[in-house]
Amino acid sequence: MNIELINTGTELMLGRVLNTHQQWLCRQLADLGYHVRRQVAVSDTGTAIQQAVREALREADLIIVTGGLGPTSDDRTRDLIAELAGKPLRSDPAALDHLNRFYAERKRTMPERVRVQALVPEGATVLLNEHGTAPGLALELPGGGEAAPRPAWLVMLPGPPRELRPMFSVQVVPWLRRRFPLTDAFACRTLRTTGIPESIVEERIDGPLRRIVEAGLELGYCARPGEVDVRLAARGSRAESLVIEAEQITRGLLGDAIYGLDDEALEAAVIRLLVERQTTVTVAESCTGGLLGHRLTNVPGASAVFVGGWITYSNEAKEKCLGVRSETLAAFGAVSEPTAREMAEGARVRMGTDYALAVTGIAGPSGGSEAKPVGTVFIALAWEGGTRVMRNLNAFDRETFKHATAQQGLELLRRAILGLAG
Amino acid sequence: MNIELINTGTELMLGRVLNTHQQWLCRQLADLGYHVRRQVAVSDTGTAIQQAVREALREADLIIVTGGLGPTSDDRTRDLIAELAGKPLRSDPAALDHLNRFYAERKRTMPERVRVQALVPEGATVLLNEHGTAPGLALELPGGGEAAPRPAWLVMLPGPPRELRPMFSVQVVPWLRRRFPLTDAFACRTLRTTGIPESIVEERIDGPLRRIVEAGLELGYCARPGEVDVRLAARGSRAESLVIEAEQITRGLLGDAIYGLDDEALEAAVIRLLVERQTTVTVAESCTGGLLGHRLTNVPGASAVFVGGWITYSNEAKEKCLGVRSETLAAFGAVSEPTAREMAEGARVRMGTDYALAVTGIAGPSGGSEAKPVGTVFIALAWEGGTRVMRNLNAFDRETFKHATAQQGLELLRRAILGLAG
Repeated sequence: MNIELINTGTELMLGRVLNTHQQWLCRQLADLGYHVRRQVAVSDTGTAIQQAVREALREADLIIVTGGLGPTSDDRTRDLIAELAGKPLRSDPAALDHLNRFYAERKRTMPERVRVQALVPEGATVLLNEHGTAPGLALELPGGGEAAPRPAWLVMLPGPPRELRPMFSVQVVPWLRRRFPLTDAFACRTLRTTGIPESIVEERIDGPLRRIVEAGLELGYCARPGEVDVRLAARGSRAESLVIEAEQITRGLLGDAIYGLDDEALEAAVIRLLVERQTTVTVAESCTGGLLGHRLTNVPGASAVFVGGWITYSNEAKEKCLGVRSETLAAFGAVSEPTAREMAEGARVRMGTDYALAVTGIAGPSGGSEAKPVGTVFIALAWEGGTRVMRNLNAFDRETFKHATAQQGLELLRRAILGLAG
Repeated sequence: MNIELINTGTELMLGRVLNTHQQWLCRQLADLGYHVRRQVAVSDTGTAIQQAVREALREADLIIVTGGLGPTSDDRTRDLIAELAGKPLRSDPAALDHLNRFYAERKRTMPERVRVQALVPEGATVLLNEHGTAPGLALELPGGGEAAPRPAWLVMLPGPPRELRPMFSVQVVPWLRRRFPLTDAFACRTLRTTGIPESIVEERIDGPLRRIVEAGLELGYCARPGEVDVRLAARGSRAESLVIEAEQITRGLLGDAIYGLDDEALEAAVIRLLVERQTTVTVAESCTGGLLGHRLTNVPGASAVFVGGWITYSNEAKEKCLGVRSETLAAFGAVSEPTAREMAEGARVRMGTDYALAVTGIAGPSGGSEAKPVGTVFIALAWEGGTRVMRNLNAFDRETFKHATAQQGLELLRRAILGLAG
């Protein structure tokens, strides 16, 4: 089965927004066992959208189109696809009723131009939008015509992520499973690792998994700064057992470098472990500037274990808020092992938590020296077992530096919670 | 001139990584006056990459391909394109020399498999990689063959952003300007606004700019949560004057809702204003959990004006770190006007800064009530002029809630610095 994704929007082609739909939809589909063959982005001019759909219709069984279903003049997907399919647009009573209710519930008058969103190509199924006004649409093309030589389905979804995502999960996924049932059983598991470079991950597991790969396992790696995903997937009657066996072997070889499964981020794994053990954490951030706290508080329920922390950017703040001694700062500098240690220990005592994580480093682009080049960072963790400080060199651009440093700090914390940091 | 962008990588089609190249390259090209007609992503299997290039060659004058130039078995772009173009691969002495130097400088032995990166399709220009090992390539196809019916250039860039971006800016842009000079003068300016919804921005300026649009101005809007960009572009001998005139009219109508130009983020505008006025700021973050500090410290040079702050997630932290009174918390709750006020005032006194920005709210998904539903937030700013507190309802998912709240806080700060918040 061939799936093609078409993202429409002039703002995409001008680079004013990041295309998050591509990653999100491809991930959802891949984890369900469907494969997106190709993704295309075009601006919302008529010829570009119609040409992209026409090209996709030559090979795809399912075409998912995002964007251009709103009420403004540049929202043209509905009209252009109806025209391409040779279907007249008709006002759909259920869609109109939904629009009326949407405005009534919010005690607002429905602007006239919004009514265009109830127009539906003849024969299309309406996907009501629980989080906005533009409905999604599913349209079957029987094939044989000039535009659609072979049978295909077109699914149109609204552009805003908080409308598209629930519509896809709640309405499109069950429809997809009925309309395009997988011919084979499918199993998929992604093991998330941190602290080991991609080449080492590959080196360790590639050989031992070879036999299962030959039996049909799809083995994939994905490296992002500071982490590597190992994706194990298989199809057919033995899919589940192949993936389980591969997971066991991989766990045996990578051990506690695996922090989580599938969509779990490192910060979510850390919060989960803290909640399980009913322990608490605080942070004292210099060079990460708040990113550690931001990542931890992205996890729903973080407030049960994360009570707060400090962003101590200046020396004065390190002294005043955390009790770092001025002698330490004078003798060793703000970016040093003793300062990181005093930050972590001061934060732990002041906040009364089980763990305190502190970072101090040189994010750049300026501020480096021969002895401490840009990218130098000290990461300290204070807990019942003592204080551990590590020195790293994250010689990247400012944004990557902050991300990598936060990643290393969270990993140090995770290992300490698991009793692996001595 | 037709430009097409092809992003290769199985990890893209599995949704394991976000395609940041698309936004970055499209933005760079658009701001130079070049237009990307279409972007395509495919997995790194041979047929998919060759098919995408072959299709692009039917219409594009320039095809930019990203990814697949590394040394591993799934890095196949170089081979596949050489095969498609009918060019043999030859080892390039300059590329090999660069590889040798890269490893020598890092005092590491060059692994044998890395040498494949010095292979270059006959006739291609090598773009040396200052930040990694895989060189970029530029290859001219004269046209007339089966694969390339019309003349076109193929530019291949390495996948890692910190290798691709400098290579594009330093080597590809000057080459592009020589090879494909713009036939017309081009001018472009993006005015960045916050605090006004897209529909109101359009309503205010669409009519007054109509006359200039009729004279050739391209007027575009791009809305993201909490901000709207107004893009003004024009081509031809009057390009510069059309854009200048449109900017003057837009500034007159939107006034201080415009916080910056082109690539300047709101946090960068705030840091710039603080530096200009030699004033300082601190933050006291509850529901944003560190995001305000993270955004401010993403700006190089932030340390001159941002000394640090607090993440006070629990009530206890609000009392202990900021001096919020327990009576206030008991009487009004943590998410309240008086608590936000005491957080800001406590932070300002304790850190000794000119400004103190505090936020407290309910990020969700749980924790809401009838009187204070999920999304309720109080944002307080304390400064010499007094303390201003505003109440907003950001009823979004957790991530968008945090972003929108931080955006509103930064905007309140910006307006106070400019003397616009009373």
